[in-house]
Amino acid sequence: MLNFDFYNPTQILFGQGQIAAITPLVPAGARVLMLYGGGSIKRNGVYDEVKAALSGHTVIEFAGIEPNPHYETLMKAVEIVHAEKIDFLLAVGGGSVIDGTKFVAAAALFEGDPWQILEKGGRNITAALPFGSVLTLPATGSEMNSASVVTRAATQEKRPFANRLVFPKFSVLDPSKTFTLPLRQVGNGVVDAFVHVMEQYLTYPANAPVQDRWAEGLLLTLIEEGPKTLSEPDNLDVRANVMWSATMALNGVIGVGVPQDWATHMIGHELTALYHLDHAQTLAVVLPGILTVRKEAKRAKLLQYAARVWHIAEGDEDSRIAAAIERTRAFFEQMGVQTRLSGYGLDASAIDAVVAALEAHKLVKLGEHRDVSAEVSRAALELSL
Amino acid sequence: MLNFDFYNPTQILFGQGQIAAITPLVPAGARVLMLYGGGSIKRNGVYDEVKAALSGHTVIEFAGIEPNPHYETLMKAVEIVHAEKIDFLLAVGGGSVIDGTKFVAAAALFEGDPWQILEKGGRNITAALPFGSVLTLPATGSEMNSASVVTRAATQEKRPFANRLVFPKFSVLDPSKTFTLPLRQVGNGVVDAFVHVMEQYLTYPANAPVQDRWAEGLLLTLIEEGPKTLSEPDNLDVRANVMWSATMALNGVIGVGVPQDWATHMIGHELTALYHLDHAQTLAVVLPGILTVRKEAKRAKLLQYAARVWHIAEGDEDSRIAAAIERTRAFFEQMGVQTRLSGYGLDASAIDAVVAALEAHKLVKLGEHRDVSAEVSRAALELSL
Repeated sequence: MLNFDFYNPTQILFGQGQIAAITPLVPAGARVLMLYGGGSIKRNGVYDEVKAALSGHTVIEFAGIEPNPHYETLMKAVEIVHAEKIDFLLAVGGGSVIDGTKFVAAAALFEGDPWQILEKGGRNITAALPFGSVLTLPATGSEMNSASVVTRAATQEKRPFANRLVFPKFSVLDPSKTFTLPLRQVGNGVVDAFVHVMEQYLTYPANAPVQDRWAEGLLLTLIEEGPKTLSEPDNLDVRANVMWSATMALNGVIGVGVPQDWATHMIGHELTALYHLDHAQTLAVVLPGILTVRKEAKRAKLLQYAARVWHIAEGDEDSRIAAAIERTRAFFEQMGVQTRLSGYGLDASAIDAVVAALEAHKLVKLGEHRDVSAEVSRAALELSL
Repeated sequence: MLNFDFYNPTQILFGQGQIAAITPLVPAGARVLMLYGGGSIKRNGVYDEVKAALSGHTVIEFAGIEPNPHYETLMKAVEIVHAEKIDFLLAVGGGSVIDGTKFVAAAALFEGDPWQILEKGGRNITAALPFGSVLTLPATGSEMNSASVVTRAATQEKRPFANRLVFPKFSVLDPSKTFTLPLRQVGNGVVDAFVHVMEQYLTYPANAPVQDRWAEGLLLTLIEEGPKTLSEPDNLDVRANVMWSATMALNGVIGVGVPQDWATHMIGHELTALYHLDHAQTLAVVLPGILTVRKEAKRAKLLQYAARVWHIAEGDEDSRIAAAIERTRAFFEQMGVQTRLSGYGLDASAIDAVVAALEAHKLVKLGEHRDVSAEVSRAALELSL
């Protein structure tokens, strides 16, 4: 096991009816900016429950945070924070709203040009407004971590940042609030969580059996419960298990003391920035190719994955690995997420564009061994044409 | 899954050499009380490393916190906190030192008789001094939770308390510092962690597959790695995996949203208070009997435990359950921990005394169904004579 430093102070309020429990967690007398996306929270009851829970507070609203939240949009929220003397933020929505709120929290107190936060990956954050979240879409894990991704629409740049000052103070996870999600978002969420686990698990052995088994536990649960969200959409336990899996997939605990990959995410970010694919769609396209082209470096863990997650016992090593990757691709498709560029109307010219973007952004040493060059990324994408 | 509220803000610094990393985590200018037990930290280098890390701080020492820390001893530390105007505590030791430090942290700021903290289970704590810990003995999980057990020597009472104000700010887990532990403490630690998992896992199904798999992941790891601490005592990875398992066993994450038992612990506390058995020794005596006498209520999870943890596939349900309980007892014995009262020189009169103590302390509705009466406790103990 590698040395590590783990810290995660986010309080989780989990279960049906928990939105009402936030009242005492928002400081008395706080001026609250409530940030959300489109109008879905007004249709599924979340908006009304949040407003009721905050009825004793001054609440100003900021709507319109888009998927892959835009720097330009978020800076408008920062202006409102300053003009209205806001001292607490509440994100109500999915990962994009929470990611965006993290940026607003840091940018509002940042001295200098806030774009520098994204240029420096968040290392230059020295203060942030406190904030909570009410999660409506299990997927990104943003509700219980200190990372965020923001897109500058003007330049098609998608940039991650992280800092321990932008952990949510609390997050509400009410699985009953996910019943009204479109199936596309449900499927995307399961794939997103699955790939988050894979980025931390599918590297090379580090003698960390707890982390391995916990990662495998999440993968097995997503494989079991994910399809049930489609076949039994009103099953609260299923929704709860998917929601908890997605949060645990990226709250840090399965990634301590082990090598991590994240090449699939970095390549996927370029696909989203260029062609506006959903984040999970890009992961479903990239991961099978990455696992295949990096088969030698990942051989031991691929065999473990084949055996423990897919229960594949037949055949020689290479055929077990190939079968496990094929099962992975089939699972994503089962969740309604296409795994080939052609499924999104893209062809080989998109690969050229992604490779050029990776080179422009100096993302040419990716993966747990820093050996995923732009050409390795190209080879991975060519397997998912 | 049941609704839950999860919160755990303790920062973990894990790995060889991490004691040096505490320097910036202790507030500048703080007057630090360093609490420890016997002299073992002076023999294994921990004392020197801690003193070096705190060389810029005012440090006063309080030695002599005993196993099952005594209220009487801890109140002497509280006096020193007041006399020396201490504003930060550092526990250096195992679970008893950390448990004791939690009590000192709360008692130092408590208005009224601090024994009331234990009378009320900690619900009446409104403030506590901040503290960190340097763990030397993986076992109790106290390094990453907000619970503590204190014994009043004068009256042979062993009382638990908990409060979110007594989470350690940080804990250092350096597995190389466990190499010099006596084998008895190593074995005790593995058994303690194992039973912590069982108290949260072995109840009844709650449709919580992540929690189940994570609990099973810890049990499997302890079964694999525990015996290696005895056969390969210098293997750092083995020590690291046991240490991390023990912390994860009781930091709250595997127990969210599921029913919990804790009857074995409550019965065991009486055995320690009356006969001074080590905490883990009492758990090893009580658990096999509790699993046996509560077989019907626990049937579904006992079968899952037999299949997934012990890979028992042969025989009818009752024989699989019996085999799993027998394997559990054998594992404790393999770790050098006796599982029968006779192994500690006790006979049936001890059972009478424990049952009388349970009744005197009104601990007569224990377990996940509150149906473990004093007579059920008696029946469980009689299976481990």
